[in-house]
Amino acid sequence: MTPLFYATAEDAEDAFYEAIAQANLDALMAVWADDEDNLVCIHPTGQRVDGHAAIRESWRAIFAGNPRFSMRLHSKTRWESAFISAHCVVETLYLQADRTAHGPMLSTHIFIRGVNGWRLVSRHSSALLPLSGDDNDVFDGRKHTLH
Amino acid sequence: MTPLFYATAEDAEDAFYEAIAQANLDALMAVWADDEDNLVCIHPTGQRVDGHAAIRESWRAIFAGNPRFSMRLHSKTRWESAFISAHCVVETLYLQADRTAHGPMLSTHIFIRGVNGWRLVSRHSSALLPLSGDDNDVFDGRKHTLH
Repeated sequence: MTPLFYATAEDAEDAFYEAIAQANLDALMAVWADDEDNLVCIHPTGQRVDGHAAIRESWRAIFAGNPRFSMRLHSKTRWESAFISAHCVVETLYLQADRTAHGPMLSTHIFIRGVNGWRLVSRHSSALLPLSGDDNDVFDGRKHTLH
Repeated sequence: MTPLFYATAEDAEDAFYEAIAQANLDALMAVWADDEDNLVCIHPTGQRVDGHAAIRESWRAIFAGNPRFSMRLHSKTRWESAFISAHCVVETLYLQADRTAHGPMLSTHIFIRGVNGWRLVSRHSSALLPLSGDDNDVFDGRKHTLH
């Protein structure tokens, strides 16, 4: 059963990954703040989705179009205060039909504490790419290397 | 002259973009917290850089390898509390020798308030990609569409 109150940002984050592992859209959306106008989800594809309804639809489509998958956290950098908790995490993706690790992905989560405990208001994900040679262009269409 | 105290997260963010426009590495690094162990900078290339020294080196290389450039903010979604301020912004990049807009880029900034005012502790940037057809794979190497 989906808890309606997350006592810590960690509880909310754990529930988020558990919902993904179970492909449980209702549980996933319960982690997002429902009393906050500003919700942002940036998928690793580079798409930005704003608001509860659009975020729900994007995850519905992800669950519908993909086999079961799970994410494992490798590391977490946290900044916490009484009302906001921000986490930078490194995730590895596992597709159930394929035990190969995908990713890693980098995600920045922002949680806020409201009347219903801690909830997610922003998830920004992108693929982690290693630094190799001088193929790492900062800007599109030009050769501006990072090193 | 670089201010040593930012009264608001907005002041720190403005100083960040001004430092970029001036290619002023010292001013840019003055925006980052200097009394915080955890600093994370994720460049749009997908590289994650941790810590003051490594972040400074990555921006030194960016300034060294690129012509002057500037970023213009299109929108900002904010969550603010007494000690943490988190912003999701949309940026357009302008190279001085080329008035064409590059990007947009999506960046999530996390600021914390310390004894020296508001400072940046995390910047997560990635390219904004439009949703088009079913070419938007969430996971690498497979065809899992978002819609």
